[in-house]
Amino acid sequence: MVHDLPGVSRRRFLQSVGVSGGAGALFATMGALGLAPAAASPAPPFQAPRRSDFTLTGRSAKKVVVLGGGVAGLASAYELGKAGYDCTVLEARGVVGGRNLTVRGGTTETDLDGSTQRAAFSSGVYLNAGPARIAQWMVTLDYCRELGVPIEPFVNANADALIYNEAAGMLPGRPVRYRTAKADVYGYVAELLAKATDQGALDARLTAQDKERVLAFLQGFGAIGGRADDWAYRGGGRRGFASYPGPGTDAGTPLAGPGSLADVFASNVGRYFSFEFGYDQAMMMFQPVGGMDRIPYALSRAVGAGRIRLGAEITALEDRPGGVRVTYVQRGRTRTVDADFCVAALPPHLMARVPHNLGAGVQAALGSFPATAAGKIGLEYRSRWWENDLRIYGGITETDLDLAHVWYPSHGFHNDRGLIVGYYNTGANARAYGALTPEQRALRAVEQGVKIHGEKYRSELAASFSVAWQRMRHLEGAWTAPPYGTPGYNLLLEPAGRVYFAGDWLSHEVAWQHGSFVSARAAVTAVHRRVMAG
Amino acid sequence: MVHDLPGVSRRRFLQSVGVSGGAGALFATMGALGLAPAAASPAPPFQAPRRSDFTLTGRSAKKVVVLGGGVAGLASAYELGKAGYDCTVLEARGVVGGRNLTVRGGTTETDLDGSTQRAAFSSGVYLNAGPARIAQWMVTLDYCRELGVPIEPFVNANADALIYNEAAGMLPGRPVRYRTAKADVYGYVAELLAKATDQGALDARLTAQDKERVLAFLQGFGAIGGRADDWAYRGGGRRGFASYPGPGTDAGTPLAGPGSLADVFASNVGRYFSFEFGYDQAMMMFQPVGGMDRIPYALSRAVGAGRIRLGAEITALEDRPGGVRVTYVQRGRTRTVDADFCVAALPPHLMARVPHNLGAGVQAALGSFPATAAGKIGLEYRSRWWENDLRIYGGITETDLDLAHVWYPSHGFHNDRGLIVGYYNTGANARAYGALTPEQRALRAVEQGVKIHGEKYRSELAASFSVAWQRMRHLEGAWTAPPYGTPGYNLLLEPAGRVYFAGDWLSHEVAWQHGSFVSARAAVTAVHRRVMAG
Repeated sequence: MVHDLPGVSRRRFLQSVGVSGGAGALFATMGALGLAPAAASPAPPFQAPRRSDFTLTGRSAKKVVVLGGGVAGLASAYELGKAGYDCTVLEARGVVGGRNLTVRGGTTETDLDGSTQRAAFSSGVYLNAGPARIAQWMVTLDYCRELGVPIEPFVNANADALIYNEAAGMLPGRPVRYRTAKADVYGYVAELLAKATDQGALDARLTAQDKERVLAFLQGFGAIGGRADDWAYRGGGRRGFASYPGPGTDAGTPLAGPGSLADVFASNVGRYFSFEFGYDQAMMMFQPVGGMDRIPYALSRAVGAGRIRLGAEITALEDRPGGVRVTYVQRGRTRTVDADFCVAALPPHLMARVPHNLGAGVQAALGSFPATAAGKIGLEYRSRWWENDLRIYGGITETDLDLAHVWYPSHGFHNDRGLIVGYYNTGANARAYGALTPEQRALRAVEQGVKIHGEKYRSELAASFSVAWQRMRHLEGAWTAPPYGTPGYNLLLEPAGRVYFAGDWLSHEVAWQHGSFVSARAAVTAVHRRVMAG
Repeated sequence: MVHDLPGVSRRRFLQSVGVSGGAGALFATMGALGLAPAAASPAPPFQAPRRSDFTLTGRSAKKVVVLGGGVAGLASAYELGKAGYDCTVLEARGVVGGRNLTVRGGTTETDLDGSTQRAAFSSGVYLNAGPARIAQWMVTLDYCRELGVPIEPFVNANADALIYNEAAGMLPGRPVRYRTAKADVYGYVAELLAKATDQGALDARLTAQDKERVLAFLQGFGAIGGRADDWAYRGGGRRGFASYPGPGTDAGTPLAGPGSLADVFASNVGRYFSFEFGYDQAMMMFQPVGGMDRIPYALSRAVGAGRIRLGAEITALEDRPGGVRVTYVQRGRTRTVDADFCVAALPPHLMARVPHNLGAGVQAALGSFPATAAGKIGLEYRSRWWENDLRIYGGITETDLDLAHVWYPSHGFHNDRGLIVGYYNTGANARAYGALTPEQRALRAVEQGVKIHGEKYRSELAASFSVAWQRMRHLEGAWTAPPYGTPGYNLLLEPAGRVYFAGDWLSHEVAWQHGSFVSARAAVTAVHRRVMAG
């Protein structure tokens, strides 16, 4: 049995479950407030291979070739390396990290179609083009701690960020702040439910005591009037101020409003609120100080740069009786690596192109992971007008424009310059931007962003760099949609001879580094178990 | 007219207001979504005195004596100094900052009753005993930028922080996480309102279109079922997991639950949610890197340490025909300062004790600001078990214990050690803890905190330091409850002869540095206007 609060002892937990009938009976039952798991047997915690696993057994660590120097590949080599496995990592790109890519001044990328961008960002300005945030529960943070990668908050939600719904009739220059939108939506929700509750419309569901408690909650939640005021929502300070409270007699100038209930719901601002409740997106979120690629760089250092071959394109994988043979091309020369085992940590759609002898079933399974499109553009500005003028310190502005999400930077507050993620979109929007030239992407992103932020969004722009993941060489996709539960998916969880597959695509946290890490751990555990049993 | 989004030009704003009848008619009207102020004339922005104000007029800067080296006093001297005013700041304590006090290893404080504490905190560990957070709109951030004080996020809300309501029957070791509590409360609120809406209970308030929109919002907001499922809330991933999703087929182990609607509302967890909606408390919030006292230290450097006299207790203030005379005692010697003007920036209850000739009205007014009690304790731990074991990275755990609020640190993530604010309480709770010895306070705080966090809360403790503001020498209170709107309050907004009052107590942001800054700016503006008119 696993408790959700590991700091509280199992003994104390069982004690508390055992208590019943007293003052605490309400919460003594398991599950009353969700502190106990629904199932009692989650997977055992990962235990990294150790040198001592071998010293006492007479067995010895083996040679492992790892395909792909993304997070899953590097993590595999790192964990195996702890026990002395001799790992070689083959990476086709010129840098480690795979989709964990941080773009800085000087970063150069050539797309599949041959168009090249070179980032002209200033010192200290960067774009996390791939993963950019880490939730508290993710093992990614454990690796940051273990590897000494300093972290800082990533601002995934901000009451002063904006919402701009063009389809709902918002006009250019007329976005609404989250704090205002929330106050109004929650205010009217509270008013409506209080009215219905108090009028007895929910008496079939609520006891008199429930009703009292629900009404008390709603008054605080919505900042609504009481019964005498028919529970009306009339706005208030939570909406924000045109001018905040000041000295002497200045109690501040409230924003005009609120609009009517009909207007507020027609604005559709509420559709963004639940993002903050997600188990994977709720604040607090974190990022490495200095760029997300501090993680693969730290892994790379721990693995040993000498074990990682960059610019190495895999051309063949052969599972043989006593080992595996991997053929690759590096700087025009064909080379081979022989090893006892292989961890194949390429994206599945690219792995499917590598000639191999693992069978038609494996090949079909690899082909059953559709790759998705996603795009991001980094816009460097000469001034941090979003902080200085709009008082937005990090966070995400949501739009129904093809930009989807606009991110303000979570670091470098009050610096001279900073970088806004001008769009982070997926699917059709990502493909549409991806089909443009980098210059056209920037033009369109700015044109759209001006609707939200005004002309400074254009006039203060200093440099831009965009990534269309589906067009990135050696990646060709943002993430995959795994066919969970199919025989093909399950087949790839088992070794194909001496080849083990790993990547976020073989986890239930696709598109998160957490998925890459836990999948790598599973592969490492399987390899090590086999070696120890051999 | 002031727009709430200053980055959007007034012209564009007026244009958009002028648009009507088209697709955007809904939002073209002022106030539809609260983007326009209710009143059209907030105060003009502050303009600091400048040297050029004097150079062209033949006038010259004057001499000003400032009583109190807290934020209001230092800010007054800083702003006046920009134009060349010759300021002297008299501060009774041994350090600048007043209630902006950061306790580090070696910090020593002797209470009114003579009991002395010396902080044994490790390097890098500190307690912001007074102000500890800054909202995005506060001028405090402008001063951080102007003075070069680096800032970082302050975690004022965290989905993984805890709620512990003993009065509602929660048992020791059985707190609930915010994410779970929110999912359940919002889920049931959505279920209830959806049922009532769909059954027609609110038809007097909602059109058919409104109903459709409200129902669509509620499905996302509460993660509830649809009509066919009678809009039922049944839990889901937002509640969190006993074990989060992992590799292969591991979709994670959900927490058991949710409890019944009756249990969830009986738990009273919802009473804490609206804190996050406050115009002054909503995330994002910020803190200076390294401690809040970086602000007064930066002000002090800008003013010039030579202009600040520490350990200087005011013993008399005399308003005279051509100036003011302040008498003070420093290191046992009585001294005087003569100046053209005085900015009196002591707490009002202490200012009331200074013999002066400003009249009975002023004296009565100063006595009409009751001082409040507040306390904080810093608990340094040998390990950051809240991060490593509980996966809580910053934020606030709310309790109905006498601790009130428990804060996890917003900096030093993954360090070896860290400091928890074991209580931050006010009123009766603060007086109760304040009446104990420092050792007794720590014992009680830990005993209470163990109920939430388990035995590590005791066993990992390394050092503690507590502040009872009502017992602090030269402060004797946390903040005041200003008698807004009374003749006395208004009297102190005017100069008493050549004496100007300043402090958060003369603002509408009491207990915030913002209040101190804007009040100081008002006093500076009044002094400078008088000098320029003289």
